[in-house]
Amino acid sequence: MKLDGILPFARILMSKALTDGDIAIDATLGNGHDSVYMAKLVGQAGIVYGFDIQEAAILSSQSRLKENNLLDRVVLFKKGHEHISELVPPVHHGKIKASIFNLGYLPGGNKSVVTKPDTTISAIRQLLEIMAPEGIIILVVYHGHPEGAVERDELLHYLEGLEQASAHVLKYQFINQANNPPFIVAVEKRA
Amino acid sequence: MKLDGILPFARILMSKALTDGDIAIDATLGNGHDSVYMAKLVGQAGIVYGFDIQEAAILSSQSRLKENNLLDRVVLFKKGHEHISELVPPVHHGKIKASIFNLGYLPGGNKSVVTKPDTTISAIRQLLEIMAPEGIIILVVYHGHPEGAVERDELLHYLEGLEQASAHVLKYQFINQANNPPFIVAVEKRA
Repeated sequence: MKLDGILPFARILMSKALTDGDIAIDATLGNGHDSVYMAKLVGQAGIVYGFDIQEAAILSSQSRLKENNLLDRVVLFKKGHEHISELVPPVHHGKIKASIFNLGYLPGGNKSVVTKPDTTISAIRQLLEIMAPEGIIILVVYHGHPEGAVERDELLHYLEGLEQASAHVLKYQFINQANNPPFIVAVEKRA
Repeated sequence: MKLDGILPFARILMSKALTDGDIAIDATLGNGHDSVYMAKLVGQAGIVYGFDIQEAAILSSQSRLKENNLLDRVVLFKKGHEHISELVPPVHHGKIKASIFNLGYLPGGNKSVVTKPDTTISAIRQLLEIMAPEGIIILVVYHGHPEGAVERDELLHYLEGLEQASAHVLKYQFINQANNPPFIVAVEKRA
């Protein structure tokens, strides 16, 4: 396949956005894969702040980061991403270059614990405030579960309404696939 | 801007799809910019077949290709892209690696001459037959003119219905912009 699939495209966006010494946010730790990826991109001088409300996600991320010797540059919060502004130290406000969300449930975890449109949108609003100009928010939208369609629609309604002067909002989606595969929306804060 | 805009993304797709010695198709010559770009990618051993129904487009493309010393590797047809199968020599069927369409009217030309859904879809069907596996069709959809919305809707209806086993169909679109800016649909033929 020559076209980039959804997960490869998410990684391309992270690589475009992050370099040595940068600040990044993993808004939904899940099993820690994105934190590992971003921690490598930001290097020893960078920091990744990771958020998740589930103990299982914190533990799984912690052990994956440890295996990769990256735990020193990642700060984990067992808190929802609606607390980003409050928990990311003020000294790093204005310096965040990338943030990623995997919307839906924890893979391999409790499928009844899912991200919610209100807290997702609240986190995006906060990020648009405290990111650096040209900072990118990557949203990987899983919408196959029952609440997924509601979150997707509320989220898209909000994102389509973002002022053109304040952000670029890009949707990247395969449109001929069955079973509601995930798609990406990337939001770039304008300078 | 870190996210790739529509025209840069079209060029990224052409670069991914084409290399030295390849066969490519410019399905809507317009002012010849894409033919120049693809002719450089396919090199001296490659060929670009260009189609346009307007004399002005043929002349403008011809002179742009000449300026760039690329006229020897581009074959221009003053014919619509619904004649692709018939006009691309049989020896090159199965070898086409990329094709690009700019849907709408000729920039700077007669705005009443526009691409039409029937002929656009007929050309895509033909390309899916005669392209190489992993060949990519890039559709840059301008839909701000009166007939543009109709073409867009018929085209998307057709593309969303393409068998998942026969093609990947990717939509790349900025979703918070005013005035119906163009978007891209890329179709990759599956092996």
